[in-house]
Amino acid sequence: MSRFWSAKVNELTPYVPGEQPKVSNLIKLNTNENPYGPSPKVLEALKAEAADTLRLYPDPNAEQLKQALADYYNVSPRHVFVGNGSDEVLAHTFQGLLKQDKPLIFPDISYSFYPVYCGLYDIKYTNQLLTESFEIDLSQYPTENGGIIFPNPNAPTGRVLPLSEIESLLKRNTETVVVIDEAYIDFGGESAISLVENYPNLLVVQTLSKSRSLAGLRVGFAIGHPALIDGLERVKNSFNSYPLDRFAISGAVAAIKDQPYFEQTCNAIIESRNALVEQLKGLNFDVLPSATNFVFARHATHDAGELAVKLREKSIIVRHFKQERIQHYLRITIGTNEECQALVDAIKDILA
Amino acid sequence: MSRFWSAKVNELTPYVPGEQPKVSNLIKLNTNENPYGPSPKVLEALKAEAADTLRLYPDPNAEQLKQALADYYNVSPRHVFVGNGSDEVLAHTFQGLLKQDKPLIFPDISYSFYPVYCGLYDIKYTNQLLTESFEIDLSQYPTENGGIIFPNPNAPTGRVLPLSEIESLLKRNTETVVVIDEAYIDFGGESAISLVENYPNLLVVQTLSKSRSLAGLRVGFAIGHPALIDGLERVKNSFNSYPLDRFAISGAVAAIKDQPYFEQTCNAIIESRNALVEQLKGLNFDVLPSATNFVFARHATHDAGELAVKLREKSIIVRHFKQERIQHYLRITIGTNEECQALVDAIKDILA
Repeated sequence: MSRFWSAKVNELTPYVPGEQPKVSNLIKLNTNENPYGPSPKVLEALKAEAADTLRLYPDPNAEQLKQALADYYNVSPRHVFVGNGSDEVLAHTFQGLLKQDKPLIFPDISYSFYPVYCGLYDIKYTNQLLTESFEIDLSQYPTENGGIIFPNPNAPTGRVLPLSEIESLLKRNTETVVVIDEAYIDFGGESAISLVENYPNLLVVQTLSKSRSLAGLRVGFAIGHPALIDGLERVKNSFNSYPLDRFAISGAVAAIKDQPYFEQTCNAIIESRNALVEQLKGLNFDVLPSATNFVFARHATHDAGELAVKLREKSIIVRHFKQERIQHYLRITIGTNEECQALVDAIKDILA
Repeated sequence: MSRFWSAKVNELTPYVPGEQPKVSNLIKLNTNENPYGPSPKVLEALKAEAADTLRLYPDPNAEQLKQALADYYNVSPRHVFVGNGSDEVLAHTFQGLLKQDKPLIFPDISYSFYPVYCGLYDIKYTNQLLTESFEIDLSQYPTENGGIIFPNPNAPTGRVLPLSEIESLLKRNTETVVVIDEAYIDFGGESAISLVENYPNLLVVQTLSKSRSLAGLRVGFAIGHPALIDGLERVKNSFNSYPLDRFAISGAVAAIKDQPYFEQTCNAIIESRNALVEQLKGLNFDVLPSATNFVFARHATHDAGELAVKLREKSIIVRHFKQERIQHYLRITIGTNEECQALVDAIKDILA
C-alpha cells in the first residue's frame, strides 16, 4: 500500500500467470504452450521485420492483420478487433461491453483472469456453478444478466460445448453481450464465429498463443458485429493507439495464412493427447474429456499438489490450482510425444 | 452508439494518432519518428528472436529489460516499470496513480492523449495555461491537486524546463504524484531520473520510440520509487500478464546497451535541427526553441493549415493541430539532412 496509489489499486487482486522458469532443461507442461514452434513461414516474415522500418510506428489499425483474419473466417475486416494478446482483447471487452448495471455471469471454474478484470473495472458478477461432471450447463444461465462470458472449450477443465447449445443460448439471451472465449477451440471444438452474422450480441475471442504457436508474440483477436467491434476500438483508441508492434502484425498474418502447418501441428497434438489420456487412465487417473491442448486429471489416491511437487523435482512442471472443487486435479499441457512419455515415466516412478 | 456498449464507451473521445500513410515515397515528418533506423545490434538481437522459442510466453516481468534499464540509469530493477509503448505505461499511471479526489493538473497545450486517459478512467483534471511564449511555468501550479503531469520537453511546443525548476516543484509538491513524461528528453534536456532517489512521489516516463528508433517495437518505461512501481505492477497484472512480447524485450535490451549508436544518432538529429531552425527563420518562420526531434514553427504570413496541405501535395507530411492558441503552428519532425533540405526547398517553392 502507498498513499500515492489510486484508491482502486488497494482493492486489486492481480492475476498470477503460470511460472515461466529461468532454468532450461525443464519439461514445461504448465502454461498450455504449443510444443511445436511456429510455421517456418512465420519465422521468415518475422526476420524480415528486423529492419530500418522499425523506426516507424506500426499501422495503428493493423489493417493487414484484420484483412487476413477476415479472409480466413469469411467476415469483413469491420467484424475484426485485434490486440496485444487475447488478455488485452478481454480487458477491453470487460471495460467496453461487459460493464453493465446487471451482473455479468461466468462459470465458477473457468479462466481465473475474469474476476480480476471485474475487480479492475468495478464490474458486478455472479458465478454459475459447473455441473458435478464439470460441464457448463447453459440452460441454467438466467437471461437476467449484464452479459455472459465463458471459455469454450472451458479452461482448466478442457470440456467443450457443441455449437447447438451456444446457439440455443443466443436465441434466448438477446439483450446482453455473450462472449465466447475460444483460446483452445482449434484443438477439438467448433468455433462460434459462424454465428456472428446472425447474432449481433455475440463476440468470439481467440488467440494465436496456442494453436498458432505464438505465445511469445502476443496476438489475440475478437470477431463480432461491427457495432461491438466499434465499441472495442473506442476503448483501445483511448488506451493505446498502437497495441500491436510490427512483428506481431506481420508474424500473425503469416501464421493465419499457413493453413497446412496449422493443421499438421494441431493434429499432432490431438493424437498425442489421445494417447496420453489412455496412459493416464491406465495409471489410475480420472481424466476429463479434453478438446484442448491440455488434460485435466485427478489421481484416484495421490494428492495433486504433492504430485506436482514431485514432478517438479523430476524437472517436469504442470499446473495445480489451489481452488475449491478442483484442488485434486492437475492441468497438464500436451507436449511432444517424447515429453508426454517422460511425464508418464515420471508419474510411474512417483507412484511406484 | 450501440445498446451493447458499456455506458462509458459513449462518452469517450478517443485519441487520433498522426497519419501512418500506406503510400511510400513520402517524406514523413508528422509523427516524430527517428530518421535513422535502430542500431545494427538491435536488428541482430531481433533476428535471433525469430525462432522456435516464440511458442513460449515471454517473461511476464521482463526482468532482463528492467535490469538493463536499472543498470543504465543507476537505479534498482524495483525502480523500473515497462510497458507496451509509453502510451500503455501512461494509461496505467493515470488509472493507478493519478486518479484521486482532487483534480489532476496538466498544461493546456501538451500531449493530447492526457485528457483522453482522464475520460477513460473518470479522472477530474484542470489545465494550467502555458505562458504567452508557450512555456510551462511550474511556479503557478497550485499544490492543491490530485497529481501533476507534463511532458519535458513539452510537446508539441518542443520547449524544455531545466531540472532545477522541476526540483523546486518537487520540494513544494510532496503530497501527490508528479509525472514527468520524457519522450523527447534525449534530444536536449536533462532527465529527472536523477531525482527519483530523493522524491518518492516522482515518476519519470520514457519511450524507446524516438531516440532509440524503435517506434515499431512499442516499448516504454517508467522509473520511480518502488512503491509507485508496485502500484503500476498491480494494475498491469490485472490487465495483461505479458504486455511485452519476446521481440520487444530483447530489442529494447540491445538498444539500451548500444550507447555509441544512440549518441551518434541523437547528435546527428540535434545538428540537423539546429541547421533547420536557422533556415526556417530565414524563411520568415517564428520557431520555438526546441530540445526535441521536432520544431514548432509559425510563418509570419502564411496560414499553417494551408502550408500543411501544400506540403502534402509535394509529398511531405507535417502535423497541424486545429487547436486554439496553436492553430498557426506546424510541428515538423527532424528528418535526415536530405529530408530537411527537401522540406526547405518545398517551402521556398510554396512561398515563391
